[in-house]
Amino acid sequence: MHRTEADSIDLLRARTSVKWRTYADDVLPLPVAEMDYPLAEPIARALHRAVDRSDTGYSSLAPAVAEAFQGFAARRFGWEPDPARVTCTADVSMGIVEVLRQAVAPGDRVIVTSPIYPPFFDLVTEAGGVVDEVPLLGGIRDGWSFDLPGIEAAFARGARAMLLCNPHNPTGWVPSRAQLEAIAELAAAHGATVVSDEVHGPLSQPATPYTPFLTVSDAAREHGVAVTAATKAFNIAGLKTALIVTASERGDRLREAMPYEVAWRMSHFGAVATVAAFAEGGHWLDGVLGSLDDNRRLLADLLEEDLPGVGYRVPDATYLAWLDLTALGWGDDPAETALERARVALVSGPTFGAQVGRGHARLNFACSPEMLAEAIARLADARASGDGR
Amino acid sequence: MHRTEADSIDLLRARTSVKWRTYADDVLPLPVAEMDYPLAEPIARALHRAVDRSDTGYSSLAPAVAEAFQGFAARRFGWEPDPARVTCTADVSMGIVEVLRQAVAPGDRVIVTSPIYPPFFDLVTEAGGVVDEVPLLGGIRDGWSFDLPGIEAAFARGARAMLLCNPHNPTGWVPSRAQLEAIAELAAAHGATVVSDEVHGPLSQPATPYTPFLTVSDAAREHGVAVTAATKAFNIAGLKTALIVTASERGDRLREAMPYEVAWRMSHFGAVATVAAFAEGGHWLDGVLGSLDDNRRLLADLLEEDLPGVGYRVPDATYLAWLDLTALGWGDDPAETALERARVALVSGPTFGAQVGRGHARLNFACSPEMLAEAIARLADARASGDGR
Ligand SMILES: Cc1ncc(COP(=O)(O)O)c(C=O)c1O
Ligand SMILES: Cc1ncc(COP(=O)(O)O)c(C=O)c1O
Repeated sequence: MHRTEADSIDLLRARTSVKWRTYADDVLPLPVAEMDYPLAEPIARALHRAVDRSDTGYSSLAPAVAEAFQGFAARRFGWEPDPARVTCTADVSMGIVEVLRQAVAPGDRVIVTSPIYPPFFDLVTEAGGVVDEVPLLGGIRDGWSFDLPGIEAAFARGARAMLLCNPHNPTGWVPSRAQLEAIAELAAAHGATVVSDEVHGPLSQPATPYTPFLTVSDAAREHGVAVTAATKAFNIAGLKTALIVTASERGDRLREAMPYEVAWRMSHFGAVATVAAFAEGGHWLDGVLGSLDDNRRLLADLLEEDLPGVGYRVPDATYLAWLDLTALGWGDDPAETALERARVALVSGPTFGAQVGRGHARLNFACSPEMLAEAIARLADARASGDGR
Repeated sequence: MHRTEADSIDLLRARTSVKWRTYADDVLPLPVAEMDYPLAEPIARALHRAVDRSDTGYSSLAPAVAEAFQGFAARRFGWEPDPARVTCTADVSMGIVEVLRQAVAPGDRVIVTSPIYPPFFDLVTEAGGVVDEVPLLGGIRDGWSFDLPGIEAAFARGARAMLLCNPHNPTGWVPSRAQLEAIAELAAAHGATVVSDEVHGPLSQPATPYTPFLTVSDAAREHGVAVTAATKAFNIAGLKTALIVTASERGDRLREAMPYEVAWRMSHFGAVATVAAFAEGGHWLDGVLGSLDDNRRLLADLLEEDLPGVGYRVPDATYLAWLDLTALGWGDDPAETALERARVALVSGPTFGAQVGRGHARLNFACSPEMLAEAIARLADARASGDGR
């Protein structure tokens, strides 16, 4: 596999995205889910061309996005979603909220499996639901799994939907087909809906490809809605295009019940970039996966050498490392100490779930190996020089 | 005033926006609110640069958008909105929905003044409200005004908000300061909220500048929220950035009660383009206003000559013409006949209000004078050759 190199620090500092504009210049920013790789050339070309033809009006490209996604999913996951069963919108978060608004009534419970991407808590609330937290079983040492009896109990006590993260943020875990099948059956047994956030799917490593929820069974197609995008894998989250995908009449009814304005919220440049990404970005993505494969292993080595005692499980997908930093003695929210004393920005563990996130933090390793090494060295220095507070 | 020339038909047909991809090639598309002018050079430059630095992550530019808007509003409308009182989001429609979600409870009535931009009906519904239609008074011959007694009665019977279109789509009418003051007082007397959609404000002609609602009185600042964007004036609606602006603590509370995710939905490229538009787009915009000034007068001449009997009032703002086509004898929805027989795409009048829109259609004259003349000539031919059905 070839490798994609991260941009130089000078180029990175010229970016005006959140990752590069939130912290002081002496901070290494490894928090928010952006990558430091240069934009894929086919995307850059498509965007330049759209600017050159003054093509900045309302987008007509939703069907093209759906077609390009079908091809990408077929080539990479052996899945052929029906382009006629796709609705585009601005981003994955909005897609989740709009699907949940149709799937649950105000006050209904929605299952989330912590530790989990923090906005999931807020998106459930925004849609009028109430979070029903069913933590993952297992952990860094043994690997994760869904708490199927816990999920069954949550459905039994009234949860009307489950918000799945497949692959899983922050753990980088790729749930097995068997686990997804079991969830589909539980949802079917209780007439509930599973919203499967698959935005990290294209970032699953070739050795551990993720399983699209809508491919696992008839029950999954009947009760599932997938929400996905090119935005994580191609680092175009600021461009704002996501896809809501269904595979049954029940799913279609949910999708079609959404206000039609939802589809107008997709950005045209997001669509231009997404079509280029799905249709022509495969080679670039392979290079990124190669670099991330290097980095996920490098991180294991660095931690073993410089920060013994820190818990880390090499993720199967994406560029996120869920670190148990309890051994550092930096308290419930070690990201605070990491920022103050090591000048390394991580995402606070407790925001992924107050209980399960204690003593943890999330690190983004979609950066150069040098930056990753520097970050771990800084954390090690802070540990060595610190008073353990 | 200098003039900005529309792009050639070949360039226009290369665009992939809705205006240029919805109809067959033999149709002149004068419907959806996109303009045929080339992108302003400062916007094109800013977008090219953002692509070149791979700057496609989550946007940090909301404060820059707010600052640039303050400067633009100060220079062009003598209004200095406080950048700290701005929340950005994806588009004006979403901004309206999110403000209304905070301002009204499910089932509350919301006043709209028809004929009105058709999505207003849907946005009120999406926010959980119920449309209370209070048609404008006057008309094409005498000019428009708000039905203040009708609006007062609507507030009295329970309307909790009014969705104002300032300047007004489809009529291109610029409401007077006195009328806006009166509305602010009525809202204040009933403790209601006025959401003022000002996206067409920058397209008001210099002779008839629009009045930002938040400048008219303390009552307006207390009860008003403005939603605006650079997207109509600079033809970047596909890029997805809008501003929600408040000017009082009551307004701030509404704005701040919105889920924080709403602000993340702004597109980064929309923000890049919006900053360039507000900060450096003034000269280009003056050229567009010059061209629109020519076209709004040209349209009057063309109609008088080729389509006598058609009702048209030269608009004070924007590039929309609200045409009374009753004289053509093409029934309640003349846009259907225009498309079928003249191959000219207009927006259906009744979508702006079933009663008030009967026999009407909206024409978009942000095109070359030649295309405008051709459109009117085709309508005239269709009238001459038609059977009046
Ligand atoms: C699991 C997951 N879902 C959704 C998102 C956000 O996606 P969007 O920016 O499209 O809302 C992220 C961003 O990191 C994510 O990790
Ligand atoms: C009055 C008015 N408001 C809102 C919009 C839509 O704006 P946006 O695309 O930002 O939702 C339009 C578009 O033409 C409009 O005329």
